[in-house]
Amino acid sequence: MSTERHRRIVLAARPAGAPTESNFRLEEGDVPAPGPGEMLLRTIYMSLDPYMRGRMNEGRSYAKPVEIGGVMEAGAVSAVVASNLPAFKPGDLVEGRSGWQTHSLSNGRGMRKIDPAAAPISTALGVLGMPGMTAYTGLLNIGQPKAGETVAVAAASGAVGQVVGQIAKLKGCRVVGIAGGAKKCAFLTDELGFDAAVDHKRGDLGEALHAACPKGIDVYFENVGGAVFDAVLPLLNNFARVPLCGLISQYNAAGSQAGIDRLPQMMRAMLTNRYTFRGFIVTDFAAQQPEFLREVGGWLREGRIKYREDFVDGLENAPRAFMGLLRGENFGKLIVRVAPDPTRPA
Amino acid sequence: MSTERHRRIVLAARPAGAPTESNFRLEEGDVPAPGPGEMLLRTIYMSLDPYMRGRMNEGRSYAKPVEIGGVMEAGAVSAVVASNLPAFKPGDLVEGRSGWQTHSLSNGRGMRKIDPAAAPISTALGVLGMPGMTAYTGLLNIGQPKAGETVAVAAASGAVGQVVGQIAKLKGCRVVGIAGGAKKCAFLTDELGFDAAVDHKRGDLGEALHAACPKGIDVYFENVGGAVFDAVLPLLNNFARVPLCGLISQYNAAGSQAGIDRLPQMMRAMLTNRYTFRGFIVTDFAAQQPEFLREVGGWLREGRIKYREDFVDGLENAPRAFMGLLRGENFGKLIVRVAPDPTRPA
Repeated sequence: MSTERHRRIVLAARPAGAPTESNFRLEEGDVPAPGPGEMLLRTIYMSLDPYMRGRMNEGRSYAKPVEIGGVMEAGAVSAVVASNLPAFKPGDLVEGRSGWQTHSLSNGRGMRKIDPAAAPISTALGVLGMPGMTAYTGLLNIGQPKAGETVAVAAASGAVGQVVGQIAKLKGCRVVGIAGGAKKCAFLTDELGFDAAVDHKRGDLGEALHAACPKGIDVYFENVGGAVFDAVLPLLNNFARVPLCGLISQYNAAGSQAGIDRLPQMMRAMLTNRYTFRGFIVTDFAAQQPEFLREVGGWLREGRIKYREDFVDGLENAPRAFMGLLRGENFGKLIVRVAPDPTRPA
Repeated sequence: MSTERHRRIVLAARPAGAPTESNFRLEEGDVPAPGPGEMLLRTIYMSLDPYMRGRMNEGRSYAKPVEIGGVMEAGAVSAVVASNLPAFKPGDLVEGRSGWQTHSLSNGRGMRKIDPAAAPISTALGVLGMPGMTAYTGLLNIGQPKAGETVAVAAASGAVGQVVGQIAKLKGCRVVGIAGGAKKCAFLTDELGFDAAVDHKRGDLGEALHAACPKGIDVYFENVGGAVFDAVLPLLNNFARVPLCGLISQYNAAGSQAGIDRLPQMMRAMLTNRYTFRGFIVTDFAAQQPEFLREVGGWLREGRIKYREDFVDGLENAPRAFMGLLRGENFGKLIVRVAPDPTRPA
């Protein structure tokens, strides 16, 4: 342990548009010692998620921005190294918001112990973690899919999208995924059992989506915005529900777009066709976590829900992987392996 | 009766933009005789409502357009003149969709008997009719106002708006009405008990609204769109609910508006601030009619809900009154008195 160094990635500068390497800085120091009422954690798996782009901006959002020089925020699965807390002992595995770093100190608040016997511990960042719960709560509370309806999901092979689609299948819906590239589309239909997948990088998206949704779209789980949303909008049926979960295509946009102001038409369409649009964040449904873990955990054990993870090795590669995430280059839930997984000896 | 003529107003041509007299035509003919299974109705009060503008357009909406040469649609309170239906007898008063005409034939479907002892019969077109039920169902199902929250309502002195605001007051909310002109604003605060009223024809609407809503807006009942919506948007609190009921400022708009495309920003705001926008039409909540009549009827009898009607005399004046409605010239629920009210002898 004495040879270990504490490495962390801090926000060096706020990006204008797409982040670049220069927005991040890798810092090194001594591994800190836990004080009274603290424990020292070693990060094993660290989650990369689109929302982090928002934390890099200044100004009002649903959470405070990361400060310049501050450690980038992330959820992570960590092992307890040393503990002055009665509830945690060395070797315990925990999930919580530890940030982009190899080690962290915690007073235990917001830390959830995870059971490596229940599922691979990396799933605490994906299907059984924040993205899975985002899918579960947004789809069921806002989307309210009914058997026989058509559910479309954007970024469908991503951490949230893959769970959305599979839950919608379990609810008896026709499920159409939108993803970038033939491989991802094949994964959706062949591995996850989606009814159709549409490649937004190929040909006329509107036409392909229309063909895949002959009875229109009743629930559109929005992760993307932009051109994908534009293709979905004309297909929304009366009484369609649109859980607004993410708008990844817009996160790097700076300023406004000139052209036609489509807002009045959109309001008109929402009124005439009785759409429900509702923005949400997983923490809005925090009270549903036990129900989520029980139900999705059960589906996972029964093999009724599958998942795909995309691992990147080494904290130093997190910035590049994050930039790729914003371009849709990951394939499945993106996770940085910061230290070897003690539950999976090599 | 033999000297009476059947007069009706038909759609002569579809308007481009604001309707003009030339879009309507007054036709005259013999009063029809009811066949087997029919009854003859004489229109007493006829409702004029903003949604009728939509029926004048061609193309998809939530209801079929009025055909060229067809009688304009309207809800009305009528008296049964002659009846071949066992359930209706001469002198009965009914409410239903009789259209812009002095007489109509009905097979009884969609006709609701009204009790003149319960409330003035014109209220079946306003506070106890479609507009009142629109206010009740939209506010309670979608707006879900909680005591202490701020509820803003556009077109607040109109048929729907006045009921929205008063129900929100009964629910313990701070209620802010937006209306055009000092008289309407004074009516809202002095007669209906709104906490504040903002005149959208005076000065800086955004500033005035901000001053009237120091704690932001939790529920915005949308009847108007356009500049009023633009002033409301920056004031919406996290988790705001927006029942989309009407967009009267846009109904006469033809084509799209050039400029900045505000749709992406709007989607971003909905996501980040977790807004719920939901379009609705009163018939979506048809099952709640008994509950509406019981509850709002009770409030009316107890004097806890007031209402204001704006009467226009004579069917021939309906087109001009309707054009004025779209410009906000009415003051209260706009009703055409087509024939003398038999329950109110002159």
